[in-house]
Amino acid sequence: MITPKTLSGFKDRLPKEAMAKQAVLEKLARVFKSFGFVPIETPHLEYAYILTQEESDIQKEIYLFKDHGKREVGLRFDQTIPLARFIAQHHNALGLPFKRYAIGNVFRGERAQRGRYREFTQCDFDFIGSHSLLCDSEVIQVIISSLKALDLEEFCVWINHRKILNGLCAHFGLGSNEEVVTFLRIVDKLSKIGEQGVLLELSEHFSQDFKPLLQILNTKQEEESAEFFKSVAHLKELHPLVREGLEELETLFDLLLSLEIDPEHFRVDFSIARGLGYYTGIIYETTLNQLTSLGSVCSGGRYDNLARSFSDQNLPGVGASIGLDRLLVALEELELVENKSTSARVLVVCMQAKHFAYASQIAQKFRQSEINTELYPEIEKLKKPFSYANHKGHEFVVVLGEEEVKRESLTLKNMTTGMQFNHLSFLRALAMVSE
Amino acid sequence: MITPKTLSGFKDRLPKEAMAKQAVLEKLARVFKSFGFVPIETPHLEYAYILTQEESDIQKEIYLFKDHGKREVGLRFDQTIPLARFIAQHHNALGLPFKRYAIGNVFRGERAQRGRYREFTQCDFDFIGSHSLLCDSEVIQVIISSLKALDLEEFCVWINHRKILNGLCAHFGLGSNEEVVTFLRIVDKLSKIGEQGVLLELSEHFSQDFKPLLQILNTKQEEESAEFFKSVAHLKELHPLVREGLEELETLFDLLLSLEIDPEHFRVDFSIARGLGYYTGIIYETTLNQLTSLGSVCSGGRYDNLARSFSDQNLPGVGASIGLDRLLVALEELELVENKSTSARVLVVCMQAKHFAYASQIAQKFRQSEINTELYPEIEKLKKPFSYANHKGHEFVVVLGEEEVKRESLTLKNMTTGMQFNHLSFLRALAMVSE
Repeated sequence: MITPKTLSGFKDRLPKEAMAKQAVLEKLARVFKSFGFVPIETPHLEYAYILTQEESDIQKEIYLFKDHGKREVGLRFDQTIPLARFIAQHHNALGLPFKRYAIGNVFRGERAQRGRYREFTQCDFDFIGSHSLLCDSEVIQVIISSLKALDLEEFCVWINHRKILNGLCAHFGLGSNEEVVTFLRIVDKLSKIGEQGVLLELSEHFSQDFKPLLQILNTKQEEESAEFFKSVAHLKELHPLVREGLEELETLFDLLLSLEIDPEHFRVDFSIARGLGYYTGIIYETTLNQLTSLGSVCSGGRYDNLARSFSDQNLPGVGASIGLDRLLVALEELELVENKSTSARVLVVCMQAKHFAYASQIAQKFRQSEINTELYPEIEKLKKPFSYANHKGHEFVVVLGEEEVKRESLTLKNMTTGMQFNHLSFLRALAMVSE
Repeated sequence: MITPKTLSGFKDRLPKEAMAKQAVLEKLARVFKSFGFVPIETPHLEYAYILTQEESDIQKEIYLFKDHGKREVGLRFDQTIPLARFIAQHHNALGLPFKRYAIGNVFRGERAQRGRYREFTQCDFDFIGSHSLLCDSEVIQVIISSLKALDLEEFCVWINHRKILNGLCAHFGLGSNEEVVTFLRIVDKLSKIGEQGVLLELSEHFSQDFKPLLQILNTKQEEESAEFFKSVAHLKELHPLVREGLEELETLFDLLLSLEIDPEHFRVDFSIARGLGYYTGIIYETTLNQLTSLGSVCSGGRYDNLARSFSDQNLPGVGASIGLDRLLVALEELELVENKSTSARVLVVCMQAKHFAYASQIAQKFRQSEINTELYPEIEKLKKPFSYANHKGHEFVVVLGEEEVKRESLTLKNMTTGMQFNHLSFLRALAMVSE
């Protein structure tokens, strides 16, 4: 006998969880498609040299091995490098601008941690081939529409601009890109180690006094945006990049406000830095007001050149990624997921094997009226199918005994109210189920 | 510069193909759910010892390697072994009977062949924990409903019973299971090497004259089922297993006929053998009448004990698997897939950057009326967005110039008819798009 076990760091999803996840994915895909984003598919496996091109901490977490033809291959660890490879390979056939979404699993051999798995699902959407601010605005719209489609109401997309960060850093004497990267990496720990901790770590690398800069980076919009932009207008004088960044943010906010999007859902936060790799423009993170400790559920921004390692062609774009597993945790916590283990609303139970044909017909009629209906396959005391329905979450149980079949009728029990109705016609029963 | 390349034996799906695939998967999932099948998820990676338990030709095709913790792991090559592992691990939490579907990718390092890939998608559905013939009938119903949901009309589920095969083999002197397996493996080549070829290969292993047996195995139902069962009733005398098998098939056919399923869609074929591993009862393959050379697009059957390697508990069931890639080839060939590269019906184009806000509002209004709408992000001569819409397949283009904005109107072009309507109100335009 072999012990049945999931691989360490991986998990199964039982029906309740798998259905909740699928419901979320369906809603997200509907939003992506409503904006004209289209799906693409890339393989789970890529040549290792595609995956290992950029230095980062993730590199040592990639699953690398040799395939049957002794090729060095690896499992994808995100969907961005495969997208860059895909665009570089197919951009002539695709035509630009190109808007794609991708919902897929990625793999990272991270150290095991509670609630973190080595295989997880990412929902990415990217708008490629345009410098227009319209794309930035649209990606933020998609984030807001996505969360609203999941019945989330209290959340905020916190927005910043890499130009503002770069301009401020330059003004405060951080000259090289390397210095900026080091500085921002330390500042990113603000919420973890506090201002004192950050200042201490900064003093190990730099001689400047960063208190005034940290104070600026700590600025979060609380008032209305017009007022906010007025209050930070003086920063424009610090550096031309700060001016450019702030002016682009103002235009973006005007665009979003003209769409009558609730201004509670998007605000400026100068502390957002968003990793340091390929982002070059407007960047954002999204937190749920009731669960800020969860961190960002959707992050993204603008990049100058997505496929720079693969192609001479300049491919600017904007994109964001929803961390599905984190979002599911949040929805679970906020009781916004269905608590069912069945896809069927009705369970049809029959009391003698000779009535299976009649039972199948009744079930088929419900299905033809778009009511998902399951047929209990065994002949057992009623207690058993009823406890099955209770366990799985069917809303109605149809019972078919000798008398029901003789009168071409059925008995319907509403599992929520406990009410039972005997010898209904199919049409009466259908009306009650459809109510 | 790195050459962008998909791994040998793997493929990307561009939007047109990816959307066609997703549309098919959505329709299939809807059918599965309408019968009360629920989704589950298992990881793409499993412990190697889980995957390598059964001897078969597939074994040497499994992608096996070591993970970061030096565990021997492998990529799943089907969804049946993971299901068996899953059920053995979770059956207490799940409750029986249990009906699951799973749509997922599997990996096999096969020799490269035209049209065959090393990563492909399987759609499996299984009804576990019941011996009832109702389950066999339901799985066949699901196959028929699935193909009809894809607008396929001319197809047949060819049905046989392992008991009939075993009974016939016993009658013709094939005593051991090993002999039966060897015999059926050779007979399976009938369509490839013809009757003479089969007889020749059989004569290398056995001394019997198999001509009369081959003749029986060549029997395919052509007439109505009542007539057919009459014509083969004499076979019941050959062996008790043949009798049992035929009687079960008769009951199954009565059940299916009582559901008013077109009898053209299910017929008996004594030559169906369905691999030889775990099937023990009624088995079937499905061919499309116009594309029989494609082979079976959906196969399955009953097994006595799914999780026998993992658990003492007896878990009988019925299941089938749709080979999605093959099915997509068929749908493409029969021109049953949509030929679009966009998820949006409407493309909104605006002629000056200062009108982006108005354009965004118009697009948002279409979306609020459930019309997927894309916004062209650049300001360019109209020729370019129009050729973009032609290339991708938008049905309507909305043009917004100075005059349109001033009159709070829009110009709508129907890309199918070529008709253009100037200065419509949004509601008039919406009515025309919704028609």
